[in-house]
Amino acid sequence: MIKVGIVGGTGYTGVELLRLLAQHPMVELAAITSRGEAGTAVADMFPSLRGRVSLKFSDPREAPLDRCDVVFFATPNGVAMQQAATLLAAGARIIDLAADFRIKDVALWEKWYGMKHAAPDLVAAAVYGLPEVNREAIKSARLVANPGCYPTATQLGFLPLVASGCVDTDHLIADVKSGVSGAGRKAETHIMFAEASDNFKAYGVPGHRHLPEIRQGLALAAGRDVGLTFVPHLTPIIRGIHATLYARLTKEVDFQALFERHYTQEPFVDVLPANSHPETRSVRAANTCRMAVHRPQGGDTLVVLSVIDNLVKGAAGQAVQNMNLMFGCEECSGLTQIPLLP
Amino acid sequence: MIKVGIVGGTGYTGVELLRLLAQHPMVELAAITSRGEAGTAVADMFPSLRGRVSLKFSDPREAPLDRCDVVFFATPNGVAMQQAATLLAAGARIIDLAADFRIKDVALWEKWYGMKHAAPDLVAAAVYGLPEVNREAIKSARLVANPGCYPTATQLGFLPLVASGCVDTDHLIADVKSGVSGAGRKAETHIMFAEASDNFKAYGVPGHRHLPEIRQGLALAAGRDVGLTFVPHLTPIIRGIHATLYARLTKEVDFQALFERHYTQEPFVDVLPANSHPETRSVRAANTCRMAVHRPQGGDTLVVLSVIDNLVKGAAGQAVQNMNLMFGCEECSGLTQIPLLP
Amino acid sequence: MIKVGIVGGTGYTGVELLRLLAQHPMVELAAITSRGEAGTAVADMFPSLRGRVSLKFSDPREAPLDRCDVVFFATPNGVAMQQAATLLAAGARIIDLAADFRIKDVALWEKWYGMKHAAPDLVAAAVYGLPEVNREAIKSARLVANPGCYPTATQLGFLPLVASGCVDTDHLIADVKSGVSGAGRKAETHIMFAEASDNFKAYGVPGHRHLPEIRQGLALAAGRDVGLTFVPHLTPIIRGIHATLYARLTKEVDFQALFERHYTQEPFVDVLPANSHPETRSVRAANTCRMAVHRPQGGDTLVVLSVIDNLVKGAAGQAVQNMNLMFGCEECSGLTQIPLLP
Amino acid sequence: MIKVGIVGGTGYTGVELLRLLAQHPMVELAAITSRGEAGTAVADMFPSLRGRVSLKFSDPREAPLDRCDVVFFATPNGVAMQQAATLLAAGARIIDLAADFRIKDVALWEKWYGMKHAAPDLVAAAVYGLPEVNREAIKSARLVANPGCYPTATQLGFLPLVASGCVDTDHLIADVKSGVSGAGRKAETHIMFAEASDNFKAYGVPGHRHLPEIRQGLALAAGRDVGLTFVPHLTPIIRGIHATLYARLTKEVDFQALFERHYTQEPFVDVLPANSHPETRSVRAANTCRMAVHRPQGGDTLVVLSVIDNLVKGAAGQAVQNMNLMFGCEECSGLTQIPLLP
Repeated sequence: MIKVGIVGGTGYTGVELLRLLAQHPMVELAAITSRGEAGTAVADMFPSLRGRVSLKFSDPREAPLDRCDVVFFATPNGVAMQQAATLLAAGARIIDLAADFRIKDVALWEKWYGMKHAAPDLVAAAVYGLPEVNREAIKSARLVANPGCYPTATQLGFLPLVASGCVDTDHLIADVKSGVSGAGRKAETHIMFAEASDNFKAYGVPGHRHLPEIRQGLALAAGRDVGLTFVPHLTPIIRGIHATLYARLTKEVDFQALFERHYTQEPFVDVLPANSHPETRSVRAANTCRMAVHRPQGGDTLVVLSVIDNLVKGAAGQAVQNMNLMFGCEECSGLTQIPLLP
Repeated sequence: MIKVGIVGGTGYTGVELLRLLAQHPMVELAAITSRGEAGTAVADMFPSLRGRVSLKFSDPREAPLDRCDVVFFATPNGVAMQQAATLLAAGARIIDLAADFRIKDVALWEKWYGMKHAAPDLVAAAVYGLPEVNREAIKSARLVANPGCYPTATQLGFLPLVASGCVDTDHLIADVKSGVSGAGRKAETHIMFAEASDNFKAYGVPGHRHLPEIRQGLALAAGRDVGLTFVPHLTPIIRGIHATLYARLTKEVDFQALFERHYTQEPFVDVLPANSHPETRSVRAANTCRMAVHRPQGGDTLVVLSVIDNLVKGAAGQAVQNMNLMFGCEECSGLTQIPLLP
Repeated sequence: MIKVGIVGGTGYTGVELLRLLAQHPMVELAAITSRGEAGTAVADMFPSLRGRVSLKFSDPREAPLDRCDVVFFATPNGVAMQQAATLLAAGARIIDLAADFRIKDVALWEKWYGMKHAAPDLVAAAVYGLPEVNREAIKSARLVANPGCYPTATQLGFLPLVASGCVDTDHLIADVKSGVSGAGRKAETHIMFAEASDNFKAYGVPGHRHLPEIRQGLALAAGRDVGLTFVPHLTPIIRGIHATLYARLTKEVDFQALFERHYTQEPFVDVLPANSHPETRSVRAANTCRMAVHRPQGGDTLVVLSVIDNLVKGAAGQAVQNMNLMFGCEECSGLTQIPLLP
Repeated sequence: MIKVGIVGGTGYTGVELLRLLAQHPMVELAAITSRGEAGTAVADMFPSLRGRVSLKFSDPREAPLDRCDVVFFATPNGVAMQQAATLLAAGARIIDLAADFRIKDVALWEKWYGMKHAAPDLVAAAVYGLPEVNREAIKSARLVANPGCYPTATQLGFLPLVASGCVDTDHLIADVKSGVSGAGRKAETHIMFAEASDNFKAYGVPGHRHLPEIRQGLALAAGRDVGLTFVPHLTPIIRGIHATLYARLTKEVDFQALFERHYTQEPFVDVLPANSHPETRSVRAANTCRMAVHRPQGGDTLVVLSVIDNLVKGAAGQAVQNMNLMFGCEECSGLTQIPLLP
């Protein structure tokens, strides 16, 4: 059994980790920490876990994290980088669901995240946890930087095009829509029901922190810098990301075949038949990314549609997928839930 | 393995049965029928099942239902009663998710359902599939009438009070709120998004078909006829029923203890601590009924709050629970999903 | 023109007052205060008011409230009672949308609201602003206590029954459902989109502050104390209250006629034809209360369905109606918006 | 007073016309037709209109449409073209809210709408009813083709860029999101609550009927053909369109100033300050288009955000605006509602 600790379990990625790990056949939940809720039973805060998770939140200073095989950080940005070195030294492996180790260029990270990085040396050692790109490296990683939700949906959608060199990578456009759980569980006015319901808006158009992460991943695939316009939107659904991606083609290929071939071995990427329109609910609660590629009116602009559940393939599910790879489990172990429809 | 057939798989109870049965360790899906969709792959209609269910819908006249161990009817009212006798004769057992066999008084059924009953003799043989009441009878049943969604939430909430004889059973009130999936998947104006969203209403106040079903169940527990005012409402959620139940107490007892004791052995009924307010999402996608009992301001009116997922404990999940009992499986087999929150 | 001031304009009742008053033919908006937002243009916070309201929020200490004809308090409970005496002395009239002056029994108020009342003498002078009950008193009032949203829907629905003495007033039941805007605009976890959407729950069953307010109003109509079980619920709609009211009849009358007669002169109460089910969207954005009365199955329990928009007839609209009465305007002035459907 | 007739009043554009026209100071509602609902009081179908609209639906063959000053067609495509000539001959003017007269190239129209055009001669005479482009022509028009909802939001957002010749018009991209009321009131599975709620998807990517309409409008402004990729999406809101528009700049100008200047005289277009993000609810129920222009990261791709209420500026409101122009009323007459927020 893999002994698992979770730091910061009161947010949505925390409770989603608990949902998945409590059903994982190879996992023993050893500790979950919360400074504010120490002593509270997890199931008292999240009644959905009654009878399934008996843990209490424990004080971070007292939790036996260093005796865990793996520690998930479901914390705000800037927490994991403070504690990673100590835990790694104690022999635990780490999967950080926040952004601390995602950007290899530390100066760039510091600019976008507005703080000094506390462990720049670990950034280099960390493996970016997108299994469809880094599967082998993840297997032996001690520190995995779990990708952001927008970056997962966007990179998976663009990768076949960018890697095959058949589109103009200087002018990629990602028009992406997120459910409200993507903003976290901290109470803020703009994500209240009476504000976000029956409403649709873009936000962060001048610049969003996931922009450099996506550009880094696509640049690696392209072998050169890429140009990307990234516009995030808030749509009144709880879970789900829908990326609508635009690229101008520079070479004629069979795009449907390209996508199918690219992901043929991937257990969690589902390329739909031609002319399909994936919907977010088709992956609700599951670790799957579904996508479709279109060439409207036979023109020179390609459109890729890519959907994930932001809390699963965009966060906790991908983290469990990474854990499975790191510990030699079946990659799909604990991740076989069928999407909830309707 | 239990060989399973489903008649009428294109509605919400059908796709929910598929979600649950496809993950059930003891089930082999043998056939699913649909007159209108014969030949269509199930996963083409419900992309959530891609890669998980490879069946195609088959024509009801050609499907090998008579070679199944059990046939689920996820059909409109009035279908199962036409086909039950033949299938039973062929050796299959039947679980009807519609209302054909729920009401023992055939004349009463015919009045509320507006049609002549085609198999009145089978009504007497059928077992009402509420395991918390009829567990032993279900185990040996050949024909199970799976309860309605409103009746499940309402009966489970009232039963401890009615069975213990501590409330006035002549004037029970059930104010019940249902998510929109309870109305089925057939397109009708009043359940369109632009009609049902951001809107709340009661309906069917003069009379609703679930009224006689609930009264029948409560009368059995009370040992006499009961009086019930039942007001259903439509609330803009996809899944979920919230029953708010009112009863005037006639005898002082410790109501919290009464409820806990009544359900102490039940794997799918969760009595919350005193002063709790169960919410529908705490059982979303799971076969659990959570409830709480209140005595506001110390008065003589008791309030019971009872929530279920109408498609699971209110339909497909309860049907699987019944199947488990009928075939000697572990009662929770295939029903261990943790609710989806958020 | 009536010179109007608003204290505390950053919440939902504040912005709703602005929507209504900016379109009122007899009103001049003189000042709106907010400690936190002083200097901010109202339309910068609420873009819906761009081009329609040019006011800025001003510091409460500097706003010319004492030179207003009427001051609306759209503040948390406990604010108006601190400032009322001074403003009244300066000649302004006051309409308090919070609860400070609603309960005549000061000790009872202090128990439910958990604070010492700062102006108990003014409580006696205040007029409870339910025009359907107190129209004449409101006309000459200097201080109006605008009713709560639950109390408006509930009292209007019960009044014909209670006033006519044809029901058992010891055991009234009000099962009431509110949209999320009723909880205000202050960010709190339980009213976030990802918590409140696709979810339904009761809350405050042991006791809610609107209980004594409703009992006070019904007792006045009944001429004696009344017994009431009041269960509020949160439903995922932005605006709207749906009250489902239960009363046991003690005298046979024509209830449909009773209701129609009771409200025949009322411009903002609409009694629907027999067998109707009012829906909350039928009054969205309007100052109307629609209701229907049922006697299910011909039994002895009556069911009244009553809907309002909690921000209009349940708050800002009723406040404007009161202002119209106080200043001799046409009662419907500024309140003729047609509900928004869909 | 303008005597108004409405053909086909049972859909969402019909009831929205009634909401606006019933409050219009210069309008007398003379007739509203519906084949299926003849004899039904309008307010019985739409309770929001109780006490405000006393008309009954009348049979199209008996309605006195030819004695109206103006007839609105709120019908499916293909109806107005059958009846227009007769009504025009009788002296009535016509505003068609469907697509019959929007596309000047009749062959193109027939290809996209899949039917033979019944009045190709009238197509040439019809004026495209986008006041921001065709105000003068509308004033004297006898037949106005009211624009589609997507085309209104998209054209208004692109026009300043296209008309000023500062972007590459061969590769415009419109990623547009629509509320569900845009699909009409006819019951269809994919727009049911349980399908469309908590879900997001693109649709019609291979081709959508609004594509040629948008291209026609932009080509006129550009003085040459334009290339456009148009991807519509369905978002779970009732009303609202959010267009996210992408264009590559070919000339450096002050884009904020360009937009402000372009629309400085327009009563219903609101250019927000730099760095703004308009949200759909900021125009809910109002005839306003709000927009913002961005240049993310100082790159060469411009992003325009444009929002309307699809039933108002995208349909009924724009139709009333056109009527005002045609009959010499104040352009804003009957259209001064403040948006409903929250």
